[in-house]
Amino acid sequence: MKHLLSPLDLSVEELDDLLNLADRIVADPKKYSHCCDGKKLATLFYEPSTRTRLSFEAAMLNLGGSVLGFASADSSSASKGESVSDTIRVISCYADICAMRHPKEGAPMVAASKSSIPVINAGDGGHQHPTQTLTDLLTIRSLRGELGNLTIGLCGDLKFGRTVHSLIHSLIRYENVKFVLISPKELRIPDYIREDVLDANNIEYVEVEQLEDVMPKLDILYMTRVQKERFFNESEYLRMKNFYVLNAQKMQLAKPDMYVLHPLPRVNEISVEVDDDPRAAYFRQAQYGVYVRMALIMTLLEVEVN
Amino acid sequence: MKHLLSPLDLSVEELDDLLNLADRIVADPKKYSHCCDGKKLATLFYEPSTRTRLSFEAAMLNLGGSVLGFASADSSSASKGESVSDTIRVISCYADICAMRHPKEGAPMVAASKSSIPVINAGDGGHQHPTQTLTDLLTIRSLRGELGNLTIGLCGDLKFGRTVHSLIHSLIRYENVKFVLISPKELRIPDYIREDVLDANNIEYVEVEQLEDVMPKLDILYMTRVQKERFFNESEYLRMKNFYVLNAQKMQLAKPDMYVLHPLPRVNEISVEVDDDPRAAYFRQAQYGVYVRMALIMTLLEVEVN
Amino acid sequence: MKHLLSPLDLSVEELDDLLNLADRIVADPKKYSHCCDGKKLATLFYEPSTRTRLSFEAAMLNLGGSVLGFASADSSSASKGESVSDTIRVISCYADICAMRHPKEGAPMVAASKSSIPVINAGDGGHQHPTQTLTDLLTIRSLRGELGNLTIGLCGDLKFGRTVHSLIHSLIRYENVKFVLISPKELRIPDYIREDVLDANNIEYVEVEQLEDVMPKLDILYMTRVQKERFFNESEYLRMKNFYVLNAQKMQLAKPDMYVLHPLPRVNEISVEVDDDPRAAYFRQAQYGVYVRMALIMTLLEVEVN
Repeated sequence: MKHLLSPLDLSVEELDDLLNLADRIVADPKKYSHCCDGKKLATLFYEPSTRTRLSFEAAMLNLGGSVLGFASADSSSASKGESVSDTIRVISCYADICAMRHPKEGAPMVAASKSSIPVINAGDGGHQHPTQTLTDLLTIRSLRGELGNLTIGLCGDLKFGRTVHSLIHSLIRYENVKFVLISPKELRIPDYIREDVLDANNIEYVEVEQLEDVMPKLDILYMTRVQKERFFNESEYLRMKNFYVLNAQKMQLAKPDMYVLHPLPRVNEISVEVDDDPRAAYFRQAQYGVYVRMALIMTLLEVEVN
Repeated sequence: MKHLLSPLDLSVEELDDLLNLADRIVADPKKYSHCCDGKKLATLFYEPSTRTRLSFEAAMLNLGGSVLGFASADSSSASKGESVSDTIRVISCYADICAMRHPKEGAPMVAASKSSIPVINAGDGGHQHPTQTLTDLLTIRSLRGELGNLTIGLCGDLKFGRTVHSLIHSLIRYENVKFVLISPKELRIPDYIREDVLDANNIEYVEVEQLEDVMPKLDILYMTRVQKERFFNESEYLRMKNFYVLNAQKMQLAKPDMYVLHPLPRVNEISVEVDDDPRAAYFRQAQYGVYVRMALIMTLLEVEVN
Repeated sequence: MKHLLSPLDLSVEELDDLLNLADRIVADPKKYSHCCDGKKLATLFYEPSTRTRLSFEAAMLNLGGSVLGFASADSSSASKGESVSDTIRVISCYADICAMRHPKEGAPMVAASKSSIPVINAGDGGHQHPTQTLTDLLTIRSLRGELGNLTIGLCGDLKFGRTVHSLIHSLIRYENVKFVLISPKELRIPDYIREDVLDANNIEYVEVEQLEDVMPKLDILYMTRVQKERFFNESEYLRMKNFYVLNAQKMQLAKPDMYVLHPLPRVNEISVEVDDDPRAAYFRQAQYGVYVRMALIMTLLEVEVN
């Protein structure tokens, strides 16, 4: 029995296998349209997340399976005081695999320890969101052809953004990856990433405050949202907020084969004028998210298609 | 790519085609039970509406397709500040067609402009609700054999009732349609319908306050709810409220082949004693609503069955 | 047309047929995986109950059917003032069978009287929850081989627990069933069960306060939750609460072939240390709940598999 709780649960080899399967699905989705016939996915969302939930549901439906579950804790037995351990044991009677989003860190891990079906962590508080990382990796590899030999710009809230941390963790396993960390001082990457991950592995990186300065170097620009309330004071916020808004003007500084990613939803950190730029890849990223989840479900259910 | 945003998006010919397809589905539903196998409908309900949502879901399931979505804005990404334009671009990666209900007028139109899948307006505020109109038209045509040569009574709140306005707009395209507009003064049909639609097209109509007076003339009686809070004063409400309650006594005045429609839900404007009258067609109308949505989904997805 | 509104709607013969069908499903679930292809179950949950709802949904999906519905009254037309009678008439146009949970006693019966599809009562207030009873009966019969010749311990809140009352009603129809009623005085079985059901049918039973005293005699121990707020005073609660917590120590007193059931969710009335005891059957019970609902849906839809 295998679960997916953290992006690093998968070795580089396992990840390659998963992304290769995703590539085969992208190339011929029809071939996989019945491989999970009769299988059921439970979506246990103790915290609403329409995008992630629907991405999982679309993935399972694309494989011929079906879906049951709940979209928020209000309509779950959690309100009756049931533990996650008990819930997963019951859900194991109802479904073949489950995707769990929970506001408490570690809840999917607790569930996995008692589950007789594979558990996918669909986000646990600020902790992990491994299928977002898989989505990011498939998107980058599909657009650039490889996960190594890249200069990756990470822009915005690098302190609290769990997707950014997971992406760094995953990408340092590939050769010749350099990071450009673009953020206000208050939202710089935390020490346990800078020192324990980047420095400890001799990864090349720079930290800057302005996006414009580094645009020409980037192969990938991964944008995230900068929430106003993260800043220490209003004047700092006003001084810097435009540094982190990607617009057509800044895009002119970028390479022709640079791609922009964003985990979505965006608020205003990418101007809508950028949407029509062929390098804007954030909506394609949502599509890759479905394909990588199809590959993940197949892998965890040990379903094979010849 | 075609969407359905307003009832008038369809020409008379397109509407005939749609209703003819619905007729063929009514005659042999099994024949269509796999024509959308592998297709997915997204139901994006930013405002709850069980009846409309389930009617769409039943329609898609009857065609062999599957369904994903959300039933209220609470469990959607709207609460994270995402625009409808962004949401629809992501949903386009998850589904083949979508039905959107939104409290803001025009939201489905904005969505359609950015969507790569067909968007069906499932109700936008007080504005449009085109699949209700299609339901009404299929019901009338099925029960009476044609959409022309009819005297249609519209009863209740003719001022705010969007279904009534859409029905008038649609029916004036057929020959020899006469309207009997039955409402309290405060809730009469607005000028932009009376003058710009009825008068401008030389449509025959009368406006009356009492339902009983006109019952014998009607071929169709379309009932709507009169909400107490719409009246200017309590005494007016008390004086008139019974004018607009359909009961067995009033039904005795009607022709034997007159049919009663209602968009539902009803509260008390039709007595339950009328339910068993063979001319009470409002529950059959709900059934026609499923068939016409099946025809609509097939049409927008360009699915054909020989 | 048949509905399931009360556990006693089924005669002993009909119940035997249903449980026999469930046995055949347990033995070869794949054989039944397409017998409801094209059929739709509506889950109308006016009150949230994830476990029950998902159990019904899993059952229908296992039979090849599909599911639509709502998980709470907020997202239903009930908030617009529609009666259950009207709702079910509309739902009859959308689905082939429905499971209804409602906070008001008798609501499913009202629905059934107007429905053109089978209605399953999935819990109406504190009144009935017949599919829980069917689940309990299938579990007991599967584990013990028969429903007669058993000593059944019922422990906890015997006053308000509807599942306990239904179980007594159902089991007295079998030969040589004895009850051991274990509860605090405040939560003893009500007179209308003790006198009108047990005494009137000459059923053997004892009433005790301590679980430990009677453990060695039991063939089945059916645990329920004792809610603190049910007690008249705090000191009574403190004196007795441990009487009703099942732990490994108490399990040592039980027969090797005694089984523990619980309708779930549990809070703390069964220690987690008991979960690994092979006699702990409450999670298997959840699995039997799916099988018995599969048998019920097939029976009400009159679907047969050779």
